[in-house]
Amino acid sequence: MVTLQEWLEEIDARARTRLGTGRVADYIPALAEQKADRFGIAVCTNEGDIYTAGEAQEPFSIQSIAKVFLLTLALRVQGDALWERVGLNPSGMPFNSLAQLEAERGKPRNPFINAGAIAVADRLVSAYATPSKHLRDVARTLSGNASIRIDARVRESEWRHRARNAAMAYLMKAFGNIDNDVDQVLDAYFSCCALAMSCVDLARALNYLAADGHARAIGAPFIAPDLARKINSLLFTCGMYDAAGDFAYRVGLPAKSGVGGGIVAIVPGRLSVCAWSPALDDSGNSVAAQYALELIAETLGHTQAPGGGLAARPRQHAP
Amino acid sequence: MVTLQEWLEEIDARARTRLGTGRVADYIPALAEQKADRFGIAVCTNEGDIYTAGEAQEPFSIQSIAKVFLLTLALRVQGDALWERVGLNPSGMPFNSLAQLEAERGKPRNPFINAGAIAVADRLVSAYATPSKHLRDVARTLSGNASIRIDARVRESEWRHRARNAAMAYLMKAFGNIDNDVDQVLDAYFSCCALAMSCVDLARALNYLAADGHARAIGAPFIAPDLARKINSLLFTCGMYDAAGDFAYRVGLPAKSGVGGGIVAIVPGRLSVCAWSPALDDSGNSVAAQYALELIAETLGHTQAPGGGLAARPRQHAP
Amino acid sequence: MVTLQEWLEEIDARARTRLGTGRVADYIPALAEQKADRFGIAVCTNEGDIYTAGEAQEPFSIQSIAKVFLLTLALRVQGDALWERVGLNPSGMPFNSLAQLEAERGKPRNPFINAGAIAVADRLVSAYATPSKHLRDVARTLSGNASIRIDARVRESEWRHRARNAAMAYLMKAFGNIDNDVDQVLDAYFSCCALAMSCVDLARALNYLAADGHARAIGAPFIAPDLARKINSLLFTCGMYDAAGDFAYRVGLPAKSGVGGGIVAIVPGRLSVCAWSPALDDSGNSVAAQYALELIAETLGHTQAPGGGLAARPRQHAP
Amino acid sequence: MVTLQEWLEEIDARARTRLGTGRVADYIPALAEQKADRFGIAVCTNEGDIYTAGEAQEPFSIQSIAKVFLLTLALRVQGDALWERVGLNPSGMPFNSLAQLEAERGKPRNPFINAGAIAVADRLVSAYATPSKHLRDVARTLSGNASIRIDARVRESEWRHRARNAAMAYLMKAFGNIDNDVDQVLDAYFSCCALAMSCVDLARALNYLAADGHARAIGAPFIAPDLARKINSLLFTCGMYDAAGDFAYRVGLPAKSGVGGGIVAIVPGRLSVCAWSPALDDSGNSVAAQYALELIAETLGHTQAPGGGLAARPRQHAP
Repeated sequence: MVTLQEWLEEIDARARTRLGTGRVADYIPALAEQKADRFGIAVCTNEGDIYTAGEAQEPFSIQSIAKVFLLTLALRVQGDALWERVGLNPSGMPFNSLAQLEAERGKPRNPFINAGAIAVADRLVSAYATPSKHLRDVARTLSGNASIRIDARVRESEWRHRARNAAMAYLMKAFGNIDNDVDQVLDAYFSCCALAMSCVDLARALNYLAADGHARAIGAPFIAPDLARKINSLLFTCGMYDAAGDFAYRVGLPAKSGVGGGIVAIVPGRLSVCAWSPALDDSGNSVAAQYALELIAETLGHTQAPGGGLAARPRQHAP
Repeated sequence: MVTLQEWLEEIDARARTRLGTGRVADYIPALAEQKADRFGIAVCTNEGDIYTAGEAQEPFSIQSIAKVFLLTLALRVQGDALWERVGLNPSGMPFNSLAQLEAERGKPRNPFINAGAIAVADRLVSAYATPSKHLRDVARTLSGNASIRIDARVRESEWRHRARNAAMAYLMKAFGNIDNDVDQVLDAYFSCCALAMSCVDLARALNYLAADGHARAIGAPFIAPDLARKINSLLFTCGMYDAAGDFAYRVGLPAKSGVGGGIVAIVPGRLSVCAWSPALDDSGNSVAAQYALELIAETLGHTQAPGGGLAARPRQHAP
Repeated sequence: MVTLQEWLEEIDARARTRLGTGRVADYIPALAEQKADRFGIAVCTNEGDIYTAGEAQEPFSIQSIAKVFLLTLALRVQGDALWERVGLNPSGMPFNSLAQLEAERGKPRNPFINAGAIAVADRLVSAYATPSKHLRDVARTLSGNASIRIDARVRESEWRHRARNAAMAYLMKAFGNIDNDVDQVLDAYFSCCALAMSCVDLARALNYLAADGHARAIGAPFIAPDLARKINSLLFTCGMYDAAGDFAYRVGLPAKSGVGGGIVAIVPGRLSVCAWSPALDDSGNSVAAQYALELIAETLGHTQAPGGGLAARPRQHAP
Repeated sequence: MVTLQEWLEEIDARARTRLGTGRVADYIPALAEQKADRFGIAVCTNEGDIYTAGEAQEPFSIQSIAKVFLLTLALRVQGDALWERVGLNPSGMPFNSLAQLEAERGKPRNPFINAGAIAVADRLVSAYATPSKHLRDVARTLSGNASIRIDARVRESEWRHRARNAAMAYLMKAFGNIDNDVDQVLDAYFSCCALAMSCVDLARALNYLAADGHARAIGAPFIAPDLARKINSLLFTCGMYDAAGDFAYRVGLPAKSGVGGGIVAIVPGRLSVCAWSPALDDSGNSVAAQYALELIAETLGHTQAPGGGLAARPRQHAP
C-alpha cells in the first residue's frame, strides 16, 4: 500500500503531463506573466498533517478562491440575512454575465460568480473599516502564515482593468443592491482576489470546511458544522464557474477555482486539498489542477458522494 | 433512542402541519384533481428493509421522477455518448424554458429539465421498439411490484396539453437533436411520466442509487458504482428544478421531484427515501415532501456532505 | 432626360454586377435549386402602367412577401383587434427567434417575423374555410393573373422542414395565442408562402399600398387610405428582417423581402416596385434586388422621406 | 379654412384633456419636481415662421432629445465611421437594457438608446475639448437663442443617479467601445441631456431635419440632404424608445422624445414641431405631447408616408 506522500508524488508526475494544455489568464497583465509549466499540490488532513508535491510552497494569486473567504466572513457577520442580497442557485451563465443580473433585478445568482462576490464584499465594507486587511488577517491566522500579503501589483492591475466588474457593481447599485461607494467596494474585492497564497496556505486555511467548521489553527470552531455543510453544498453546485455540473459529475467534490490557476477541494470529514497550475481551460479552471483533483477523487473511491457523509456520524436518535 | 419507524411517524406528523400550503399542479386536468391533503413517506435501506408512514402505498403520477429512470436506461444503452445530446450543467432557468435551448442550439442543459428528458427519450425510442413499455417493466422489476402501470388518463391529458413540450421537441428537431418523429418521442416521454407508483415502489426502485448501483430486486448490479455516484451528483446539482441550489444548501441530498408531488432522495451508502404530497411550491416541488426530507437530513446529521462518502470505503492504495 | 424604361434597363445592368455575391436559400431543398444568376424588376405606377427589365415575368416563390397579403387580409377581417394577437414593434431579433416569443408570453413582436405571420394565419384559418385558396384568389385578382398558383413542391418541402416554425406555433399555442390546430395553421401559412408570382404580379398586386389603398384591378378601394399608410409604416420599421433599420437608413422605402429572392418596395403616392434575384445576404435579403431598390431610391431623390408625404395632399383645414 | 394658429390652439385645448394621465419621470429628483399639468407646442415651418400654443416658451430639460444633436455632431465629425461604434437597427428592448449590449459585445443597437448615445458622446469627447459646451453653443446657434444653458441641478442629479448609465458605459469600455475615461464621457452625456430648451427653441434648432439639412439660423446647410433623410429614417424606426413601431403605425412621423416630456417631430419638406408635457406613459413618452402630434399627423393627412417624399422633387433623369 502506497503512502499519502508517494501517492501525491505520483499525482504530481501525472498532472505534469497536462502542462502543455490550456492558456494562462490574460485579462490582466499581472497574471498573464505567469509561466504555464508550474504545478503544486498540498493536502491538509483533519488531523493537521500536511503532505505536498511540486511547488506547493509557491505563492500565487488566489483570485476567485477569495470568494470562499468572503462568503464565510459575510455569513459570520450577517447570517442568513445575506441571502436577501445574493442567491443560492447555479447561474447557468458565464461568471461575469450581466444579462441575468439585469433580469433578476440586481440580485446575483450565487456568491461564487463575480457579481455575487462583489455584493458580498459590499456587506463586508459595511461591516469592517478595512475589510481587505481583515480578510488578509483571517487568511494569515487560518493558515498560520503571517507573511501572507496582498499583491499590490495584481490589485493595481485589476483596478485598471475593472471595466466589466465595475459594470456589474454599478448595475447592482442601480437596483439598490450595493450600499457603499462602488469604487470602495471594488477596491475591497480586488484586494482580496490579489491575496498571494501557496497551496499549503490554502489547504490549511480552508480546512475548516472539511472539519465541520473547526479551525485547527485557532483551536476552535470557525463556523458552525451546519454552515460548513451548507458552504460545501454551494461549492458543489456553484464552485467551478459554468463547469460546476461537469466537475460535479466527473470529480464529485466541493471545490472552488481561481483564474490564478489554483483549485481548492474539500473531502468532508477527511481533508482539504489545493492544487495549482496556471494554464486554464475555456471555463477558466486550471487544466492540470483539475486533473490532479480528478485523480484524488478516483483514488479515494468516493462512490457514495454527495450526501454520503450521512453515513459517517449517526446522531443520537437516528435509527 | 427512537426506532426508524417511530421516527418516520414523527416526520409524518410534522409534515402534515404543512398540508395547507402550496398548490396542486393544474397544468393538466388529470393532475389538478388530486386532493392536496395527502402525505406518505417510505424508506428503503440498503439492506432491503422498508419503513413507511402515511399513504406510502398509494400510487401517484411520478411525472419528472421518470427522468431518473430515463437517464439511467439511456446511460446503460449509450454510455457517455449520451452527453453529446444533452449537457451536464444546471440550467439556471425554469424547467421548461426555450430561450436557453435556442441559444445553445438545441442541446438541453441537463437530463432533468423537460427538454433534456425529451432528448433522452428520443435515444430510447431509437433503442427500443416500445420504450415506455420497457421502462414500465424496469420499474416493475426494480420495485418488485408487477402491478405498476401507465395511467392512460394522465398520458392522454399530457398529450392534449403538449403544446410547450412539443415546442421544445420541435426546436431540438430543428437543430438535429431529435432523430425520431416528434409525436412518437413525446408519446414515449408522456407515457413514462404517467407511470403511477407509490412511495414504497419508488424508494425500492431507485435504491440502486444509494447502493453503489446494486439492485437488490435483481440481486445484481443495475449500473456501475461510478455511474451511480455520477447520477447522484447530477441529482444534487440539477434534480430540484430551478430550486436545486436552494435545496442542496438546505437539505444537501441528491433528489428528484415531480409535479405529481413526489420527491425521491438518496442517502448514498445507506438508504433511499420517497415522500409524497400533491401541493407544490412556486418551483414545482412538493411543500410537505420537501419538509419531510429536510427533517430526515437534519436528523441524520449530514455535516460532511457532499463528497463526504470518500471517508467510507478507502481503496487498496489510498493512504 | 431618360425614360422610365431606359432607367430600369440601366438598373438591371448595374444590379447584374452583384450577381456573384450572396447565397441562395437552402433551408428547404425546393428553394436551394434556384440558379443564383437571375434578376428581374417590374414597376407598377399608380396610373397602372407597367415597366420591366430582366426576368420580370418569371414566377418565383414569394415566401415572406406573403406576410403582406396575410396581414392585409387579417386587418380586413379583424381590424385593430388583430393587435391583441401580434405586436407592432421591431423585434430586434432574427426572424425565427423563440426567446423573445417566450419572454413576451407568445405574442409575436410584429406580423413580419415568422411567429407573427403564423399568428396572423391562425386568424385567417378561423375566418375562412380554405384560407390559402382565398389568399391565392386575392393574389390572382389584385395582379390580374388568373394562372397564379401555389407551388405544391415548395409547400411540401416547407412542411417536411417545418420543425422550427412548428416550435414557434406550439409555443404560441401553449400561451393560448393560436386557436386552431397547429398542423392546419402551418399548412395555411406554408401554402401562402409557396405562392409562385413574378415581379410583374407582385408589383401589380401590392400597388394598393402605393395608391392609398386603391386597387386598380378591382377598380375600388381594397383597404382604407389610413390602413395603407399604417401598413407602409410597419414595412418601413419591420419589413426587412433584422436589417430593417439598416435598409431604412440606406434606402428609406417601405419594403418586404422573401427568401425566394424577391423584394417589394412602395413609393407612396407614385408606384410599387418588385425586384428579384435568388442570392441572399446574411440577413436573408436578396443582394441584387436590394441594390436595385437602392438605385431607385437614390435616383428619385427621396430626401424628405419618411413622413414626407404630408406635403402631398393638404386637407381642408390644414394651414 | 382654419389658420395654422387657430389649429394649434385647438390642438392645445384637446391635448390638455389628457393632462391627468401618465406620470412625471422620477428617476432623478430634479425631474420629479415638474408639475404634470403643463403643455406647450411650437411649429417651425421651413420658411422660418413660428406658431405656438400653450407654454411654448418655457424651458424644460431636453433629456433624450439631446441624442439627436449628439448624433448629428458625431456624423459631422466622423461620417459613416461612426457606425463601427453604434448600430442602425431598432433594439426591441427597453432603452436602458444591458442584456443586448452584452450579447452584442458592447456595440449598442442604435444611437437613440442610452448606450448608443453614450458611445456617441465618447466620440465627441475625443473630438472636442469641451463637448457639452460645444453642443450647447450649437443649440444656441441653431435656435437663435443665446440664453440656452445647461441646468446644473439636473446635471448634478443625473450624476448622482448615474449607476445604470455607468453600468452601460463600463460594459462598453470592457468591450473596447469607449475610448475615454468613463466619468468624463458620462459628464459630457449628462450635460447635454441637461440642456434646458423650450418648444420654440427645439422646433427651430431641429428644423434642419425638415429642410433637407439646411439651417435657416446660419443661412447655410448644416448637414447634407442625404444625411437629413437618413437621420429621419432612424428617428422613424428608433426614435420613440420601445414604442417606436407603435408610434410609427399610429402617427407616422420621424420623432424623438425625452423623459423631460418633450417630443420633436419632423414633417420632411414642410416643418418641425415640438410638443411638451411632463407626464409620461409606460414607454417614457409624454402622453399629451404624443396626442398632440397624433392630431397634427391626422390633420395633415399623411397617407403616403413614409417614403412619400419621393413625389416631391423629381430629379433630372427621373421618369
